[in-house]
Amino acid sequence: MPAPAQDPPAEAQALEQVLRGEIPLTTAIGLRVESYDGSELVLYAPEEPNRNHKRTAFGGSLYSLAVLAGWGMLWLKLREAGEHGHIVVQTSHADYREPVAGDLRARVEEEDLGNLDKFLDTYRRRGRARIRVEVGIDGKGGRAMDFHGRYVVHR
Amino acid sequence: MPAPAQDPPAEAQALEQVLRGEIPLTTAIGLRVESYDGSELVLYAPEEPNRNHKRTAFGGSLYSLAVLAGWGMLWLKLREAGEHGHIVVQTSHADYREPVAGDLRARVEEEDLGNLDKFLDTYRRRGRARIRVEVGIDGKGGRAMDFHGRYVVHR
Repeated sequence: MPAPAQDPPAEAQALEQVLRGEIPLTTAIGLRVESYDGSELVLYAPEEPNRNHKRTAFGGSLYSLAVLAGWGMLWLKLREAGEHGHIVVQTSHADYREPVAGDLRARVEEEDLGNLDKFLDTYRRRGRARIRVEVGIDGKGGRAMDFHGRYVVHR
Repeated sequence: MPAPAQDPPAEAQALEQVLRGEIPLTTAIGLRVESYDGSELVLYAPEEPNRNHKRTAFGGSLYSLAVLAGWGMLWLKLREAGEHGHIVVQTSHADYREPVAGDLRARVEEEDLGNLDKFLDTYRRRGRARIRVEVGIDGKGGRAMDFHGRYVVHR
């Protein structure tokens, strides 16, 4: 049985507490859950702690924000389905299309997940399931970084 | 003309200064250049600031250490060849094979680079060249993470 629907901003706040409470590096990165409306999640990090020597974003910071956006979207979707589990990234691919100047924002939409219904069904039956998540980071000229991650969730 | 050979430990120290001076997040990660002997580079980061909620290493920290190890190896090899340039990661693939408990070490050997001679030749002729770098992070049961990055160097 799905849990009762939660207020998306409250869910965003809960996710931020989990991420900042359990992964110390998120504090160094300055991570915030900027928004979640039930179908789109945006993670934010300020420019300064994440810059490189060229005053654009460090590739490791962009990646960290993206991998956490994918993790966060799965955490939210599991919670909305009345489930929970250990979420682990298995493989990832990152494509740096252009440098990112200024603050960082990683964006993931529900439609950027693999088949969520099938994933939840498999998870309920087997206690373990995999799903692919696509995350984007926007730059001034459009999409600056594409991230694809495959995550496994297990009880 | 290649520059005179440098003392590898002095080169390691120079690389650490560059990484820590120019990318603030390396301080949060606690990055150190643990060793460089002219053919193998090892970057180190302590467990505590890089752990996740399961007290194993956060995937973003593992990735950051790996992408910097690839960057660092290219920086060293360019310097040894009497060259310098802007080194940028273009694409990457990470395969998390098992969790990493304890401190983090990313290892790259000269043989894990694509064709270095061809890369340097192209760079000298065109002022721009690409090269693939493989980096590994070891865990208790062997290789814990494989990283493949494609980097571009330009003047």
